[in-house]
Amino acid sequence: MYTLSVLVDDKAGVLTRVAGLFARRGFNIASLAVGGTEQHGVSRMTIVVDGDRAEVEQVRKQLDKLIDVRKIEQLEMTDTLGRELMMVKVSTETQGRAAVLEIAGIFRANIVDVSLTTVTLEMTGTADKLRALFELLEPLGVVELTRTGMVALQRGEKTIYD
Amino acid sequence: MYTLSVLVDDKAGVLTRVAGLFARRGFNIASLAVGGTEQHGVSRMTIVVDGDRAEVEQVRKQLDKLIDVRKIEQLEMTDTLGRELMMVKVSTETQGRAAVLEIAGIFRANIVDVSLTTVTLEMTGTADKLRALFELLEPLGVVELTRTGMVALQRGEKTIYD
Repeated sequence: MYTLSVLVDDKAGVLTRVAGLFARRGFNIASLAVGGTEQHGVSRMTIVVDGDRAEVEQVRKQLDKLIDVRKIEQLEMTDTLGRELMMVKVSTETQGRAAVLEIAGIFRANIVDVSLTTVTLEMTGTADKLRALFELLEPLGVVELTRTGMVALQRGEKTIYD
Repeated sequence: MYTLSVLVDDKAGVLTRVAGLFARRGFNIASLAVGGTEQHGVSRMTIVVDGDRAEVEQVRKQLDKLIDVRKIEQLEMTDTLGRELMMVKVSTETQGRAAVLEIAGIFRANIVDVSLTTVTLEMTGTADKLRALFELLEPLGVVELTRTGMVALQRGEKTIYD
């Protein structure tokens, strides 16, 4: 797994061109997150991709040729803050609300909604941490779940602009 | 702005086909988040798109024809929990670390990294709340920023499967 952080112009069609490049090379995108940055008109895509080092290097070179791509950075996981957001709706019908709230408390997940038969939690963290929460909630009945894909910044003072 | 939640098969090329459909119709994707679900092999895309009601209805019909698309739901904002994750690295060189930590405290943002000259914060919330945090941090010196794009679930018991 390799993580690429890509600054792109925020224009129609950019996402298609980037996604198309990955598809043509047969690379599967394991995770993708796209959002704004501190600069108006510039978006940042965080792409987690399967493949070996040589293949990722090739994709990187291809990305660099796209006119809308301003900057590409390959993030090393040891030196990176990688985090993801998960929202999960859990049934309270089988084991009760207290069982869900107890797990939420252990993981410091936020409760964002409560109904008569469900509780919806929100948590941020690494993929491993989100998986651990999911595994504890699954026996209670996970009704639905959504995740953002990972975003990442380098630790310390270093930035994508260096 | 309309929000579509789309369940898709987790296969190479799906993202390209979906993004291509939007690009061909000239729709700009304002926000996109792609991540796993509670079902193995199924991903959920949350797409925020500009356009009027008729145009979005047309896109929805086109999406429905794609073989990898399992389910589409148009979310009504009044009835939806929509949240996004932002990570932001702020300089502590101009106004000091305490100024950053004070703002983090007010917004209940998490501190995920500290260096001699920077603090990196993480916050989840609506786009409005994230914008408010950014506006307070900007005068201090935002070094870099990344956002996931919005994910959304319906409030209460209702799910995409209903």
